[in-house]
Amino acid sequence: MSGSYAVDPASLGAMLEASARIGGTNKGGLRRLALTREDKAARDQLADWARQGGWGLKVDGLGNMFVRREGSDPALAPVLVGSHLDTQAKGGRFDGILGVLSGIEILRTLDRLGIATKRAIEVVNWTNEEGARFQPPMMCSLVFSGQQSAAWAHQRLDKEGVSFGAALDGIGYRGDAAVGGRGIDSYFELHIEQGPKLDAAGIPLGIVTGGFPTRGMRVSVRGETSHVGPTPMALRRNALVGAAYLAVAVDDIGWRYAPQEGKTTAARLDLAPNLPGILSDEAELYIDFRHPASTGLADMEREVEAAVAESARRSRTEIVIAERWGFGGLEFDAGLIALVRATAGRLGVASMDIRSQAGHDAYHMAKLCPATMLFTPCRNGISHNEAEDIDFAMTVPAVNVLLNAVLARANG
Amino acid sequence: MSGSYAVDPASLGAMLEASARIGGTNKGGLRRLALTREDKAARDQLADWARQGGWGLKVDGLGNMFVRREGSDPALAPVLVGSHLDTQAKGGRFDGILGVLSGIEILRTLDRLGIATKRAIEVVNWTNEEGARFQPPMMCSLVFSGQQSAAWAHQRLDKEGVSFGAALDGIGYRGDAAVGGRGIDSYFELHIEQGPKLDAAGIPLGIVTGGFPTRGMRVSVRGETSHVGPTPMALRRNALVGAAYLAVAVDDIGWRYAPQEGKTTAARLDLAPNLPGILSDEAELYIDFRHPASTGLADMEREVEAAVAESARRSRTEIVIAERWGFGGLEFDAGLIALVRATAGRLGVASMDIRSQAGHDAYHMAKLCPATMLFTPCRNGISHNEAEDIDFAMTVPAVNVLLNAVLARANG
Repeated sequence: MSGSYAVDPASLGAMLEASARIGGTNKGGLRRLALTREDKAARDQLADWARQGGWGLKVDGLGNMFVRREGSDPALAPVLVGSHLDTQAKGGRFDGILGVLSGIEILRTLDRLGIATKRAIEVVNWTNEEGARFQPPMMCSLVFSGQQSAAWAHQRLDKEGVSFGAALDGIGYRGDAAVGGRGIDSYFELHIEQGPKLDAAGIPLGIVTGGFPTRGMRVSVRGETSHVGPTPMALRRNALVGAAYLAVAVDDIGWRYAPQEGKTTAARLDLAPNLPGILSDEAELYIDFRHPASTGLADMEREVEAAVAESARRSRTEIVIAERWGFGGLEFDAGLIALVRATAGRLGVASMDIRSQAGHDAYHMAKLCPATMLFTPCRNGISHNEAEDIDFAMTVPAVNVLLNAVLARANG
Repeated sequence: MSGSYAVDPASLGAMLEASARIGGTNKGGLRRLALTREDKAARDQLADWARQGGWGLKVDGLGNMFVRREGSDPALAPVLVGSHLDTQAKGGRFDGILGVLSGIEILRTLDRLGIATKRAIEVVNWTNEEGARFQPPMMCSLVFSGQQSAAWAHQRLDKEGVSFGAALDGIGYRGDAAVGGRGIDSYFELHIEQGPKLDAAGIPLGIVTGGFPTRGMRVSVRGETSHVGPTPMALRRNALVGAAYLAVAVDDIGWRYAPQEGKTTAARLDLAPNLPGILSDEAELYIDFRHPASTGLADMEREVEAAVAESARRSRTEIVIAERWGFGGLEFDAGLIALVRATAGRLGVASMDIRSQAGHDAYHMAKLCPATMLFTPCRNGISHNEAEDIDFAMTVPAVNVLLNAVLARANG
């Protein structure tokens, strides 16, 4: 049981290259939004690999895909390994993708070495992890883990008003498997760090102990339309200016908490009527903020609330927090973390503990079963960017840790 | 020649009411964007009124409409009176419309009183004055006055990529009259003030001596896409934040110059990819600023340029002024101003001199012929807003001044 096995880097590399050809941008990135033609092509390719491997494939009612290598004891719940194949509008070639393809490479390796496991191992591709097309992100693991209904997900609309359900039907990926409701032994997700720490330290493995608590808000600004010319400054109630005050204040808060690794984002701003010649009376600003500690996050939230009031006062607009959401702030399973740590030690792979600052399907899965994540370095920490890149040699060690940890769990 | 004549308020009021039914919004305003179905309906109604009056109607190659009451001497150039029937996306019932319908009411009054004039009088409806659909505003008087070509106008695109020429054909208003290139004796435009001065002072007539010099800019911000989560504050180059810094700085400049009647606007902001989960790398911010004096405007422009550099520095983005434009800063014709002033005095209509702070077709016409404007009060100075309103009794005196001044000019 304590043999050390290794994946075939060439096999994994070839899959990454094949993936990079689907939805590739002329800047070397990927644009593969959920449930588009490109997403379908990436899914079809995954299904091909499953067929070639002789493994089972099930697709559930949200399009989540499960490639299953059977275990010797069908009564045991499977070990789940995976991530997502969809990308941001201007995304990279590794975010999510590396986790799914590493899972396939693990199945290939076990076949190649003729290793049977007691538990089945399933490789999952979660639908719409990014949330770039349908809000919220990590939507389909949310439903899989029983925190929302499939009907709710089917009704979510993209910017053009297309429902998630209709888009799913459009690419033929509404499967007949039930969404969740079955036993899962454990969940492993390997992912690029999307931050600069591992790359800067030259360490190939981040043992993810948990996630930064994160809050998001949709903030509504109401001003008044008016002529841009004669309206005196004192009579102006420009929703764009109200949102701009808040965006700057939110950025300032991020800088104040930066020494503690806090950060803030003004991520999206929608304005109406948003034309020259007239002041906008409506603005919707999407912001988020993160902090390693829940108490720090609560402090930031109070500062954001104060900034909302102050921005309203200075711009003479009305500003309300219309919606709040949150994720993260969890600790991953101590047993799985210990297993990953021991496996890394056994394989001689240098590692550091790290807390994830992004959202991941693993957060939702942690509500359903023991879950953890492994991070690999990405160059300069750049992600959600077409320039996202990895040093492949610095990536393989963590994939081997994943292989051996999954194998131990599947036979444990 | 020095008789004092008066329009029929009921006739003018009925026309305003008829106009308010075309493109009416549920908040009591108008949405009648240039060359839409609503604009066509307003044009058809104007054409009906021309037919009912027995006057001529010519439509030029840009859809500018000219309703002509002939004079006794066909060799003399006509006096032109008018404004525009298109509105902002959330516009009011009087901006532009009052000027066109006052012109029609003048023709009706002259007919009713059996008054002939030496010069023909033409009432003009300029196409796309607002610029809410096609940029720039006042586009068709620009061409009429010889400052641009009709072909250039035909190629302008709206937000959906529809060309001005195609939209014009779509509503059947590409006429066969040449655009400009003919003698015009003089141009009068009556318009609501779109500012609070006349209303606050309780004065029914503003004698417009000229226009505030105005500058507009399109400012391009370039940042870098990145993950909103793990990216440290120091590595973020969020185009939204760059634009927000500039919008706030531009607003601050407006406040600094407010005691001298300077003002600034952050009017429109387009972002990409503008999604949660990713920092935007592209922003286009449209700003404008106005000052009664050209020297003051130049000071403001220097401050805006400094704000561009400072906003780039603080947000670690690249910001460049991609486009600049300007209008205003002119003096209207001294002879016409004197005529309006004398006419107001003769009719006992209280007036104050005023400088226009908005853009108007009269600015372009002033390059072609003597031109001037008359302002009427609008409630609380609110315009480019569905709540735009007037006190009709405070409006009629200026229409009578317009009637008598136009009559004097047409017989002069």
